Amino acid sequence: MSINLKGKSIISLNDMKKEELLYLMDISKKIKEGKYSNFLEGKIVASLFFEPSTRTRLSFQSAIKYGGGKSIGFATSKSSSTEKGESLADTVKTVNGYCDAIVMRHRIEGAARRASDVSTVPVVNAGDGSNQHPTQTFLDLFTIIEKKGSLNNNVVGLMGDLKYSRTIHSLLIALSHFDVKLVFISPEALKIPSRYLEYLKSKDIDYEIYNDFKDCGKSLDILYCTRIQRERFYDPMEYESVAGSYVIDKEGLEYLNKETYIMHPLPRVDEISVEVDDDPRAIYFEQAHNGVPVRQALLGLLTGTIK
Amino acid sequence: MSINLKGKSIISLNDMKKEELLYLMDISKKIKEGKYSNFLEGKIVASLFFEPSTRTRLSFQSAIKYGGGKSIGFATSKSSSTEKGESLADTVKTVNGYCDAIVMRHRIEGAARRASDVSTVPVVNAGDGSNQHPTQTFLDLFTIIEKKGSLNNNVVGLMGDLKYSRTIHSLLIALSHFDVKLVFISPEALKIPSRYLEYLKSKDIDYEIYNDFKDCGKSLDILYCTRIQRERFYDPMEYESVAGSYVIDKEGLEYLNKETYIMHPLPRVDEISVEVDDDPRAIYFEQAHNGVPVRQALLGLLTGTIK
Amino acid sequence: MSINLKGKSIISLNDMKKEELLYLMDISKKIKEGKYSNFLEGKIVASLFFEPSTRTRLSFQSAIKYGGGKSIGFATSKSSSTEKGESLADTVKTVNGYCDAIVMRHRIEGAARRASDVSTVPVVNAGDGSNQHPTQTFLDLFTIIEKKGSLNNNVVGLMGDLKYSRTIHSLLIALSHFDVKLVFISPEALKIPSRYLEYLKSKDIDYEIYNDFKDCGKSLDILYCTRIQRERFYDPMEYESVAGSYVIDKEGLEYLNKETYIMHPLPRVDEISVEVDDDPRAIYFEQAHNGVPVRQALLGLLTGTIK
Repeated sequence: MSINLKGKSIISLNDMKKEELLYLMDISKKIKEGKYSNFLEGKIVASLFFEPSTRTRLSFQSAIKYGGGKSIGFATSKSSSTEKGESLADTVKTVNGYCDAIVMRHRIEGAARRASDVSTVPVVNAGDGSNQHPTQTFLDLFTIIEKKGSLNNNVVGLMGDLKYSRTIHSLLIALSHFDVKLVFISPEALKIPSRYLEYLKSKDIDYEIYNDFKDCGKSLDILYCTRIQRERFYDPMEYESVAGSYVIDKEGLEYLNKETYIMHPLPRVDEISVEVDDDPRAIYFEQAHNGVPVRQALLGLLTGTIK
Repeated sequence: MSINLKGKSIISLNDMKKEELLYLMDISKKIKEGKYSNFLEGKIVASLFFEPSTRTRLSFQSAIKYGGGKSIGFATSKSSSTEKGESLADTVKTVNGYCDAIVMRHRIEGAARRASDVSTVPVVNAGDGSNQHPTQTFLDLFTIIEKKGSLNNNVVGLMGDLKYSRTIHSLLIALSHFDVKLVFISPEALKIPSRYLEYLKSKDIDYEIYNDFKDCGKSLDILYCTRIQRERFYDPMEYESVAGSYVIDKEGLEYLNKETYIMHPLPRVDEISVEVDDDPRAIYFEQAHNGVPVRQALLGLLTGTIK
Repeated sequence: MSINLKGKSIISLNDMKKEELLYLMDISKKIKEGKYSNFLEGKIVASLFFEPSTRTRLSFQSAIKYGGGKSIGFATSKSSSTEKGESLADTVKTVNGYCDAIVMRHRIEGAARRASDVSTVPVVNAGDGSNQHPTQTFLDLFTIIEKKGSLNNNVVGLMGDLKYSRTIHSLLIALSHFDVKLVFISPEALKIPSRYLEYLKSKDIDYEIYNDFKDCGKSLDILYCTRIQRERFYDPMEYESVAGSYVIDKEGLEYLNKETYIMHPLPRVDEISVEVDDDPRAIYFEQAHNGVPVRQALLGLLTGTIK
């Protein structure tokens, strides 16, 4: 199969076939190794952040600029014309004349898809409500490959808010295309929805379910943590009673394998103690940094400046 | 006449003689054709948007960056020192040391003129209150030339809020230097002020007045639409009764000539139906996109990087 | 001594030895003379302005971009993840993967130091609360050298709010390393704290104290003015009674030497009358403009792109 992503929009994980995803991973690796430079020269990427997000926005900005490109845009909808009653479609059709690609975050599910439907330049979804945030998943996958050599043959623990976390659901779908075993670790109230378990069965992916990472940590290649939001519990007492089982601190490290890498989409609050940061298994900052080469690769492929 | 705009500020249409305007149009065309590149290399343009405006701001950013330049600035006065009681003149005199040109939007009429009076670098007015927004007119003129080959020999319809629209008034003045016929189409409450009619008479420009574009559409080369703001009517019922006569939808298209181009400064709300967008006569997005080459040309000429 | 600032953070004046400071001044001069260009090419500097500041932010932006570098960041904490409860340390550790240096302003004293403690890239403090703002002092020193040829052999008047002004305190400390005489001019309520006088004695620096610049102006090489904030006085009447003694207007100029340069960190409100601006001794805008070469030099040295 010849792979050509030029002109495509990436709104959800499903916009990339497995081969395309692996190609993106490969280009990302080459970029991190310094094998491409200034490929975005002369290109402008518009960052339309209708909803603020420092981390994702700065990561894209960094990708655009280390790639040699330039950026225009806004960081909050406060400074956008949608305040004047303009439709999103009109904003996109106008901005199409100002740039070579659009990176967009919006609080409304489906907004990015709507934008890509009318856009004449590629649109990258940088998060639409609680729906999709595909580049987060791409950098998660890249980090796993970087540390483990492959997406195959890994036991991946997914811990925390398995019910609502968009990051977890996307990662689960992405991993299901590979030879992995998944281990779900969460309180009852936030357990993985059964539709995902059905899906995994249909794909013949093995999984296990735990309430405490201490019971399964030694078996894991990766432990992917997410935040448990107090607001998710009807009963604050219930939150207090369970939260401790999902906190990784110095003592918790003892329950992991010597090679269990700890990942987190960040920002974290207290689910990973800062005393863990210096442990070689703590790779969540590296993981965040990987957003730069992965987003560079994606923008290079979509604009056709990397072939 | 030798034309040299280096160092000039452009605050109102009157800052450009007819020959200079035509020269700007010519350079804009060459830029759109790719005949100049990176002329702004090493130059910084400060975007001082004391009042937010996505469209105009991003269009200038795009112009600066496709021209090879860099940009500094702010998108709202929230992040400006004027909050600390600093005078506009002091802000401008300080920023003069940071850049090669200033693009400025301010809510107060005359602010841009005041800025240009103290500035040692060229100032471009990107809108001061309801006063002047000359680059909007430049891109309007450029679009007419691009579609019709010339500003002369056109019948131009101006529709909507002819009483208050800054865009309409500026375009009218600019067109009055050419061999055109103007057709005014508006409700009584928003008709073109008589001082403009007097002015046209003094310039020997023919005009006609209508209440409904359906009565004159077939005669038009250009139909330039603007929004009718509900707030302009004392009586909401009056708004309801007239608004429909100024909406272009699929049916309305029937009343236009096969070559009547439809323009709009955008953003639109409902005065042009989205079903019209695919009609080849609907050129308002192209018109918006033309802001980029026109603003590139202007910045190139004012900074002396295009001669 | 071999001077190498690569990788260092500059949080307070004390982070630079006297020799390093003089080296910075020397490089700044060369940059202003056009002797370095594009040294920041390929580098990204993150501007993290948790607290807004147009002047300082734009000056750094200009320095980065005239130096050939690129910039990412935010202008207010409204658009930062700290709103989601992320610690400053985590924000810094994440942003480390996006850039080659960080420029940071924060309302909390010590925030910049904390950031530099965890950062793997150089951090420049662009103001933390009422604590430190070292680059303001650097540009002040640079301006004195530029006008007087040296930091030595100057009588420097410091006027206005000598009690609270961070700018004054930093400049005093910096000047104390040179052969200067200091003249303090302020109302009683805002006089220089005695700990600074003790310090000057320990350094064998001569000083004098006045309540009115008219009594000492003829003896000054430099008169450095700062704003007196009405809010500093318990009794508004007291403010009214003294404020006039610290305002430089056309008449006040008569009390200065023909070569007494007037400096001010800006923004000013009414402590220097605009009628003074055209006097050749009024150098406060030049002083502000000097922020660009000085910040370029600093970023070049810290990133190792200038050696």
